[in-house]
Amino acid sequence: MTASRKPAVVLLSGGLDSTTLLALVASQGYAITALTFRYGQRHAHELECAARVARAYGVERHVLIDVDLRSPGGSALTSDIPVPKDRGFPEAATDIPVTYVPARNTVFLAYALAWAEVLGTGDIFIGVNAVDYSGYPDCRPEYIMAFERMANLALKAAVEGRIRVRIHTPLIELRKHEIVELGTSLGVDYSMTSSCYDPLPDGVACGRCDACQIRRRAFALAGIADPVRYYVGSKG
Amino acid sequence: MTASRKPAVVLLSGGLDSTTLLALVASQGYAITALTFRYGQRHAHELECAARVARAYGVERHVLIDVDLRSPGGSALTSDIPVPKDRGFPEAATDIPVTYVPARNTVFLAYALAWAEVLGTGDIFIGVNAVDYSGYPDCRPEYIMAFERMANLALKAAVEGRIRVRIHTPLIELRKHEIVELGTSLGVDYSMTSSCYDPLPDGVACGRCDACQIRRRAFALAGIADPVRYYVGSKG
Repeated sequence: MTASRKPAVVLLSGGLDSTTLLALVASQGYAITALTFRYGQRHAHELECAARVARAYGVERHVLIDVDLRSPGGSALTSDIPVPKDRGFPEAATDIPVTYVPARNTVFLAYALAWAEVLGTGDIFIGVNAVDYSGYPDCRPEYIMAFERMANLALKAAVEGRIRVRIHTPLIELRKHEIVELGTSLGVDYSMTSSCYDPLPDGVACGRCDACQIRRRAFALAGIADPVRYYVGSKG
Repeated sequence: MTASRKPAVVLLSGGLDSTTLLALVASQGYAITALTFRYGQRHAHELECAARVARAYGVERHVLIDVDLRSPGGSALTSDIPVPKDRGFPEAATDIPVTYVPARNTVFLAYALAWAEVLGTGDIFIGVNAVDYSGYPDCRPEYIMAFERMANLALKAAVEGRIRVRIHTPLIELRKHEIVELGTSLGVDYSMTSSCYDPLPDGVACGRCDACQIRRRAFALAGIADPVRYYVGSKG
């Protein structure tokens, strides 16, 4: 750490989007505090990915935060609701999928505010993406803007004018294959990342959930080989 | 539980305000899910008070949620910063006190959103009060309104029109002694509650922190005896 580097808080799940985001923020010279949430998701494999990615980018601080989103439930990612498979083009669906987790980004961003205020920064980065997977309401620009406005009324440091909260969403307008292209141009090693909603115990991706299908198509469109392993049998 | 009772989420700390709030919401016939947060506060005594109060009002569900606000720190309530004592009229101070906890109400209300959505309700109650202790930015009406607006963009059930999030703040415009009067008219037993920021290990209130001073004056103004025990020696 050098005194001249500006602090930033980055939300890091260990997936494709947040890893690309971290590479981007690191390339801009920020002193990064990365936050990863253990929220009762089925795919704990992504926590290992997040730790690997955080190390690879030399973040200043990687914080693992336990968040109980399992007791309210209401999502295929935190309960026994089955993860949908083989939907074909899930990004074209107009309904909000059952993998939606109630209030997830609001809980995550609320913790980011606490860290940002204590670090003396208003710069928070989140890898939401509204184009290729517009189903989640808390990934849309209007939500992010409303959160930012609320945050600047919530924090002492903002009210006193010492920071101005900015929720940066540099990926929000990118297509998924453009995110892969951006990360590749930044030298991201995507073998470190995990996107699957329902991986095998050893971390092998199912290949058939919405996240796998969208990811595979993105790499294909970008003309780049996806280095993660996909299950080729008949699981699930 | 009867099928006809409308569900509501109530934030319950076990202090004077949230206990009065719970009594009020219970008197309106809601089926209550009460949320209490263990966030690294020094005064764990208030968790016992919250459990007692929840039982007394027959809530449907009392959920204790662990929230890590200790690792970011930045508050006298979650770190080694001393709790101010003997400030005289703390409610008249214009600065935001060191007992402010970064993003606390935003984190609490974010969890409340997750519960509300799963319960199929938009009704969330929080006992914030902006009159006699206006120091905390996340107790002000403008913050609450901005949070409510954000919430209605965040939740699937709100976006789909099945619920409308309302952050109810029935105490927000009341003076502290008016809260005591309201609770007394509802039959609240205030001996169950804890307000002190720095109680003795057995739960006896210090009598000298901002919260104790404001509470004692409120009971005096209301002409009602405060049933909690205050330390009369020279601690702290």
